[in-house]
Amino acid sequence: MGSVELVQAAAQRVAQTRAEGHRVLVVLSAMGDTTDRLVELAHRVAAKPSPRELDVLLTSGEQVSIALLCMALAEIDVPARSYLGVQVPIHTDARHGKAQIQRIEPQRLRADLDAGLVPVVAGFQGVDDHNNLTSLGRGGSDTTAVALAAALDADECQILSDVDGIYTTDPRVEPRARRLERVTFEEILELSSLGSRVLQRRAVEFAGKYNVPVRVMAANSEGPGTLISYESQELEGPVVSGIAFNRDEAEITIVGVSDRPGIAHTILRPVADARIEVDMIVLNAPRDGRVDFSFTVHRDDYDETLELVRAAIAEVEPDASIVGSREVAKISVVGVGMRSHAGIAARMFECLATESINVRMVATSEIKISVLVEERYLELGVRSLHDAFSLSSATLT
Amino acid sequence: MGSVELVQAAAQRVAQTRAEGHRVLVVLSAMGDTTDRLVELAHRVAAKPSPRELDVLLTSGEQVSIALLCMALAEIDVPARSYLGVQVPIHTDARHGKAQIQRIEPQRLRADLDAGLVPVVAGFQGVDDHNNLTSLGRGGSDTTAVALAAALDADECQILSDVDGIYTTDPRVEPRARRLERVTFEEILELSSLGSRVLQRRAVEFAGKYNVPVRVMAANSEGPGTLISYESQELEGPVVSGIAFNRDEAEITIVGVSDRPGIAHTILRPVADARIEVDMIVLNAPRDGRVDFSFTVHRDDYDETLELVRAAIAEVEPDASIVGSREVAKISVVGVGMRSHAGIAARMFECLATESINVRMVATSEIKISVLVEERYLELGVRSLHDAFSLSSATLT
Repeated sequence: MGSVELVQAAAQRVAQTRAEGHRVLVVLSAMGDTTDRLVELAHRVAAKPSPRELDVLLTSGEQVSIALLCMALAEIDVPARSYLGVQVPIHTDARHGKAQIQRIEPQRLRADLDAGLVPVVAGFQGVDDHNNLTSLGRGGSDTTAVALAAALDADECQILSDVDGIYTTDPRVEPRARRLERVTFEEILELSSLGSRVLQRRAVEFAGKYNVPVRVMAANSEGPGTLISYESQELEGPVVSGIAFNRDEAEITIVGVSDRPGIAHTILRPVADARIEVDMIVLNAPRDGRVDFSFTVHRDDYDETLELVRAAIAEVEPDASIVGSREVAKISVVGVGMRSHAGIAARMFECLATESINVRMVATSEIKISVLVEERYLELGVRSLHDAFSLSSATLT
Repeated sequence: MGSVELVQAAAQRVAQTRAEGHRVLVVLSAMGDTTDRLVELAHRVAAKPSPRELDVLLTSGEQVSIALLCMALAEIDVPARSYLGVQVPIHTDARHGKAQIQRIEPQRLRADLDAGLVPVVAGFQGVDDHNNLTSLGRGGSDTTAVALAAALDADECQILSDVDGIYTTDPRVEPRARRLERVTFEEILELSSLGSRVLQRRAVEFAGKYNVPVRVMAANSEGPGTLISYESQELEGPVVSGIAFNRDEAEITIVGVSDRPGIAHTILRPVADARIEVDMIVLNAPRDGRVDFSFTVHRDDYDETLELVRAAIAEVEPDASIVGSREVAKISVVGVGMRSHAGIAARMFECLATESINVRMVATSEIKISVLVEERYLELGVRSLHDAFSLSSATLT
């Protein structure tokens, strides 16, 4: 939320939902840029602020927003009561700045709900076993909301933000992208490049684990948003839910290494030790006892990874050469439906071939097929696939 | 505290006190105008903010300052740990906005002190029996500090502010006013017109009750300040500690009421019912079965009081008349020493007579003599009395 007006708008929304006969509990994050301002303040005081004290500092942000919302609710005759993480209490482990919720004592919140009150809980925060304040990390308020919905056995957990749902792909790339009515937990995790702007990955995992239906909606409009649950869109619905993509990839290929056990380990061990995350990995079929080994890393890690790999193979594979590129991108076709439908990969490759887009790497999972392409083909690829799988909105087709 | 620089200065001060071999616990209030800003925010959201939620909102202020001080302390290698009122916990009653401390659990703070840590506690806040956040009201941080000093049996409770101690009178009226080295709890309460800018009355009462020596000092300089304790300045020290004054008085006199039991009650009952505080009260000796009855109220209450008194006596005392004045001021000579010294009053009246200052009312307590004078004589009276009781600083005399 950004201002007093947003607090009042949120209060109106709560009042309306309540007037529809629902029992409502609200989880709030800090207002506007509060968290950024507090982080900046901390860094003006200390080069490396104590993680324990940073949590004390940052959790003051939600304290302000929950109090203000309760005041705004009382102003329109909705009885409400605010709770800090330490008051609920929301128990977490002791990892400051990235704590995980361990258990919630929902008795008091349940009593409030039974009494017709609206509990307003501070998101993002909890308390460890020694009564120290903890924070769940950025976006942790989503996780708090899902965890409370699970603890209270809520019918639905609504996440309000500045987007009105999950789309079949990024509307900035494909203007005909369509809002999904429903999507499954598995799909939303694979659609992370679309969903990450909307919903914290951990919140989704939590929701999946405890089977809490989550609805992603716009804070400032009325639409139904996108419901995330275990049920897929329709029984005989579309096979593919969306086209995800990622521009942050870089590709490294080691050409002509010996085809022997342990070669992947030799190459990737130092990369893993440097805590560099590897995404796609491809090992070609051997030719003349030699293979090409390719993988992708985040673009920011490209230079460091090149160095590490060069050092790793210098002695053991003097004949191999290393090539790579930063100008690659990953496009993924995602859908629970593809589990039972053959031919998705075929249709994908056909579509890309028609557009003369060369596929450099392929990775598959049960509900996703990803290809690595030259970055300049990203938009064309996304739009073509979006069309090939009939994802575009009917009204605009 | 007003800024990052003040946080860092406070950290340096803690480090220095610690380096001198003391074990230090810090109580902090909110930074600068935080509390005012939050109150304003609340009033933008609600015409009459819920007291419970106002406490949640306001107590976020100290949360920020304690976290920042701990970070600043860590930065200069002083291990510190912050505590909210709810974490200590500091138990209070449930009167939001003006809660009173009921008991403190000092075990964790004591363990920190034993381990060489500096506990940094949020002032002004506590928690009631149902785990609701409470605030002690403006200046409550002083009370928190004194209460913690009492609970931990501290050698001394230092209150740092923008003044460097308690003075014999207001230096703006008498430039030769002298900082007192020591003053007793009783005296500081009587010197409230001097001390109120420095220290909350409740904090002083708490300190007196639990016999916690309190030192009032400047935050930004090195002086020893003024020590407030049960011991008076010196065994054979000055009789008078200071000259207090108050410009907020207004005088009302009912002339010629019948001298009968209950007349004071008849006049003051409606004033008390209107929650108007009465300060000085004087009933003259009767003359021809009639007396003059005078009292003072706060200047802001003058008009309302006049109306109330007029209504009260209209029927029962039709012959009495009412006179009054807003242009009066109270001057008080304060000192524990005067208990055992006769002649203080005589010297006071002699001094005022020498300056031709007419005394309109007199009130006495064990350690204070107050006179009501015309306001225009206030400065002259204060300076003359300051001189008559040899309070001026030696260097400037």
